[in-house]
Amino acid sequence: MKGKVYLVGAGPGDPELLTLKALRLLRTADAVLYDDLVAPEILALITPKALLHPVGKRCGKKTILQSEINFLMVALAESGLRVVRLKSGDPLIFGRAGEEMEALRKENIEFEIVPGITSALGAAAAAQIPLTHRRASSAVVLLTAHRASGSEADEWSKFAGSGSTLVIYMPGQNYREISVRLKAAGLNGETPCAVVSRASTLRQQVHRTTVDELKRTPPMAAPTLLVVGEVVRFANEAALRGFVVPANVNKDVAPFYQVLADFHFPGNASESEEPIA
Amino acid sequence: MKGKVYLVGAGPGDPELLTLKALRLLRTADAVLYDDLVAPEILALITPKALLHPVGKRCGKKTILQSEINFLMVALAESGLRVVRLKSGDPLIFGRAGEEMEALRKENIEFEIVPGITSALGAAAAAQIPLTHRRASSAVVLLTAHRASGSEADEWSKFAGSGSTLVIYMPGQNYREISVRLKAAGLNGETPCAVVSRASTLRQQVHRTTVDELKRTPPMAAPTLLVVGEVVRFANEAALRGFVVPANVNKDVAPFYQVLADFHFPGNASESEEPIA
Repeated sequence: MKGKVYLVGAGPGDPELLTLKALRLLRTADAVLYDDLVAPEILALITPKALLHPVGKRCGKKTILQSEINFLMVALAESGLRVVRLKSGDPLIFGRAGEEMEALRKENIEFEIVPGITSALGAAAAAQIPLTHRRASSAVVLLTAHRASGSEADEWSKFAGSGSTLVIYMPGQNYREISVRLKAAGLNGETPCAVVSRASTLRQQVHRTTVDELKRTPPMAAPTLLVVGEVVRFANEAALRGFVVPANVNKDVAPFYQVLADFHFPGNASESEEPIA
Repeated sequence: MKGKVYLVGAGPGDPELLTLKALRLLRTADAVLYDDLVAPEILALITPKALLHPVGKRCGKKTILQSEINFLMVALAESGLRVVRLKSGDPLIFGRAGEEMEALRKENIEFEIVPGITSALGAAAAAQIPLTHRRASSAVVLLTAHRASGSEADEWSKFAGSGSTLVIYMPGQNYREISVRLKAAGLNGETPCAVVSRASTLRQQVHRTTVDELKRTPPMAAPTLLVVGEVVRFANEAALRGFVVPANVNKDVAPFYQVLADFHFPGNASESEEPIA
């Protein structure tokens, strides 16, 4: 009998920002395929009975093709296992879940999506930036800094003209180029920006700047995220002064995790879905 | 000594989509101010010791002004309490958290934002729609169906021209008007859409349609959310046929919640932040 795949969001980094459902699935998985960006504190919550497969595509390690990840995921599910495909943030936002869902459908493997806190929300919470505000922005655009290949006109000009908050995932280190693109798209050089590094972790940093001054952004550790728009004026005071903002990560909840880890889950057979062999 | 306020996202509805941090705060709060849309199953997780204050602004009940919510939140925190302001979805996306943060800063009350799964992610997971896809969409726009007052040019035309996925929060029931606006903004009538009602709950429904056919959307229970864009073609098969999609809500995890509820949290004094009197 075929197994089942859960495409699960691990959130921005703080293990307390996992959902209860993600935790339950990590405690009852037979196999977990995880990305490089998933925090070690989260990997530590996976049941020791599960097979672990790192399938990260970053950090200079040997490249794993998306097709290879799909193949592994399908093979494990076809052997009857309960497979968790763990992605940082949310699986449906810049997570290639679309391609993985297609591969699973093609092989007729049951799957389920378990949403996670996407980086934009983790970063906004860290810097206390309301992504929408009645007086400043009525829409939020989530995008990446990668240029769409073959597209002559820069799509950023459409977003820049809308007055919306822009949240740029994976901005990279070339802030000078991003600044040039944002201005070419029509944004005023004085528009406030915030670069948030390692949001929600103990090493979280927030750098407050403007479109003009983006090029002077100091090197900040990945993952980073760039928020652009008038709402950044509402960021917390420390961020307004360009300071490091300590994350409110609670270091004393280890006993809480322990209770969760010790809980005997009823197991596959009592799930509301069809039992998995 | 002043208390502290936590602006906490409750997610889209399924109590298992709460974060571990949200649950911990609900179990240790002195007072909880909650919106109408927060599910009863989530309210049931609040410690019985907490004072409960419904502050919803919907469902035809007597209107509570935002200033009154701010006043109550400040008064409770000033009396030394640990206050949770619980909002459906994420507090920083269409949640008026900006105004509440301003009120708290003005009174010099410490606060923290705890992100939640925003409705767009809950609905996309329910309908299995990848919000971004290498072959279909490289950006996601989160917006509402309320017209920006005083704005002559419809900002939707900018988004419609970008080829991005549009996620429209609180679309209301006037789908005919939304269809007209989307076409006036330049979207092709054949562009696929999905209306998702009560995402992540047992009464979840997905209606798959197109911009042209939106006006024939049957009445669906609030909260609803409208996803517009080519990525909707990747929705799951049941949704493609316009069927009701059963939510994968696990009804057998009550013992899991019980373990969490019975856990003795170390309490305020052992938090990594300053102790609260």
